[in-house]
Amino acid sequence: MKTVMVHTAKPYEVRIGCGLLGQAGEWLTSLTKARVAALITDDTVDALYGDTVASALAGAGLRVERMCFPHGEASKTLETYGKILCFLAEHRLTRSDAVVALGGGVTGDLAGFAAATYLRGIAVMQIPTTLLAMVDSSVGGKTGVNLPAGKNLVGAFHQPVGVLCDPDMLSTLPPEVFADGTAEAIKCGVLCDEALFATLATGDWRADIEAVIARCVSIKADVCAEDEREANRRQLLNLGHTFGHAIERLSDYSLPHGHAVAVGMVYAARIATSLGRCEADCLLRLEAALAKNGLPITAGYSSDALANAALIDKKRAGDTLTFVLPQWIGVCELVPVPVERLPELSRLATGETTI
Amino acid sequence: MKTVMVHTAKPYEVRIGCGLLGQAGEWLTSLTKARVAALITDDTVDALYGDTVASALAGAGLRVERMCFPHGEASKTLETYGKILCFLAEHRLTRSDAVVALGGGVTGDLAGFAAATYLRGIAVMQIPTTLLAMVDSSVGGKTGVNLPAGKNLVGAFHQPVGVLCDPDMLSTLPPEVFADGTAEAIKCGVLCDEALFATLATGDWRADIEAVIARCVSIKADVCAEDEREANRRQLLNLGHTFGHAIERLSDYSLPHGHAVAVGMVYAARIATSLGRCEADCLLRLEAALAKNGLPITAGYSSDALANAALIDKKRAGDTLTFVLPQWIGVCELVPVPVERLPELSRLATGETTI
Repeated sequence: MKTVMVHTAKPYEVRIGCGLLGQAGEWLTSLTKARVAALITDDTVDALYGDTVASALAGAGLRVERMCFPHGEASKTLETYGKILCFLAEHRLTRSDAVVALGGGVTGDLAGFAAATYLRGIAVMQIPTTLLAMVDSSVGGKTGVNLPAGKNLVGAFHQPVGVLCDPDMLSTLPPEVFADGTAEAIKCGVLCDEALFATLATGDWRADIEAVIARCVSIKADVCAEDEREANRRQLLNLGHTFGHAIERLSDYSLPHGHAVAVGMVYAARIATSLGRCEADCLLRLEAALAKNGLPITAGYSSDALANAALIDKKRAGDTLTFVLPQWIGVCELVPVPVERLPELSRLATGETTI
Repeated sequence: MKTVMVHTAKPYEVRIGCGLLGQAGEWLTSLTKARVAALITDDTVDALYGDTVASALAGAGLRVERMCFPHGEASKTLETYGKILCFLAEHRLTRSDAVVALGGGVTGDLAGFAAATYLRGIAVMQIPTTLLAMVDSSVGGKTGVNLPAGKNLVGAFHQPVGVLCDPDMLSTLPPEVFADGTAEAIKCGVLCDEALFATLATGDWRADIEAVIARCVSIKADVCAEDEREANRRQLLNLGHTFGHAIERLSDYSLPHGHAVAVGMVYAARIATSLGRCEADCLLRLEAALAKNGLPITAGYSSDALANAALIDKKRAGDTLTFVLPQWIGVCELVPVPVERLPELSRLATGETTI
């Protein structure tokens, strides 16, 4: 087992290890005074791992209340959020009880937001079941749901009491869902760690999975601990996300997040290269690493469409966007860009023009 | 004008002064970088003060988006919360924009919760329009909504960027709504300030209203600053609330909050007197002060009904309730009580038995 300490205002531990799932209850009772654990999950994950986790929780003496909602992004609404809250209230969870969020990013965000706001905040343990959730959404404390007007427009920062990552669960992931998480792992390499990038670039690193997850979590934890509420350095984690979000939106969210971020990173590298802000082989190495891991390097949208879609990104504060651009593999920089320059940058990103 | 500084993690100012309403826009633009102000209010308040505040905001160069919902506790739901969020998203508020909550406790809680969670938190200015909201809910950062299973079961802690109290607005309050706020002011006197209590006990203190509000806000701010997330000393503010909430519930919320707290304080004083933990004249002075201000001193429910209703109070953590009991006017103590003793204490509270 590997552990990473996340030093937010209230520090917590991320545990990564094959077979850890059975220890969920024991760990939760050591972290909280909970008597009741509300196990929140989706139908797919419930069928695969619901019983194991429920037994682990009950085995530690917890009363387990289990709720499951239909899997998929379509559930990430205020409506499902309201159902979870009513479930917690109906089962009389008190301030000292806990939510256990078992699932991918949707479950972590939904159940995390419910835990953040039920009785103005109760404990949540995150048990991510996808690679993406393990390396990405289990650290940082972001929770939330979508509105009709856009994704993740509502939410709260709420740190978990602990995050349990059991890579054994990844064996049931479809390859493209696994690849989705790989994109975020590659992002961590591009941001901070050339050695991690080199491991991932081989495309053959499943034997190192505990170490890879731990390294990614550690990178993200370092960035977030410095800057819990996302002002400066934390924006680095948005590498590939400005155009990534635009691509997701253009695909009407049929393209998964990690795949969109993969293309977004390629675009960021191409912009950086065009502007002469980046080492020459950076773009090629990135494209090769993504391809080796079954990830796309282009999305086929026009630069105009990209620029328009990026403009309605919620991260726009006033009239400036902050781009994250690689300088070389392992180091990136934040570059503020007036929104007026977006069409030009979009053309550089897609290679329609060069400087 | 009087000002009280509230020293939470992010300090803010409460300004109290007749005629301040016209300065809302100027103050908001000095506190934030907002370009858009979403003015959230209910239909009653909108008709009385909506135009004044909208003009004040627009006069400071802000784009004003105005939303109004039906007045009353029945609006304090996840549904109205969702409508406010969609309104903010449709009008494209960014992270640097602001919500202005104009109204009583329901509006402050609802709009505050929406501001706390829209884009994971944007600025909110509170402009309370009732005495209760001025002395009570404008400090402490509590926001939230009700669930079918109970009141205030969902919410967040979210400090405002500023609170503007213009007592001129209180002239339009019905007397019983004004009295509701007086109960919370009397509570502040019982907790911390015998001189404040003496002023209020006359029943004739409207000329001192700015000073009374400022003193109450200051008392509440001191207690909350020490203990932003309600662990220990902040529980003092629950004086009268354990039975107060029970009485509200028994009345099916037809009895207003402050009226219920008035009776709850009498019950707390009677318990303290019966247990010999309280100065002898405390109960009589409290009853006299409440009566002078048009507040009730009994609710007419049986001790059994009270005990049962108090048991489902959400502030129960595990198996202990914390009672706030006066020792004399100006000093109270926290007394943890096992839930098993509730029936006995209820009988003492109503005077059905004495020790």
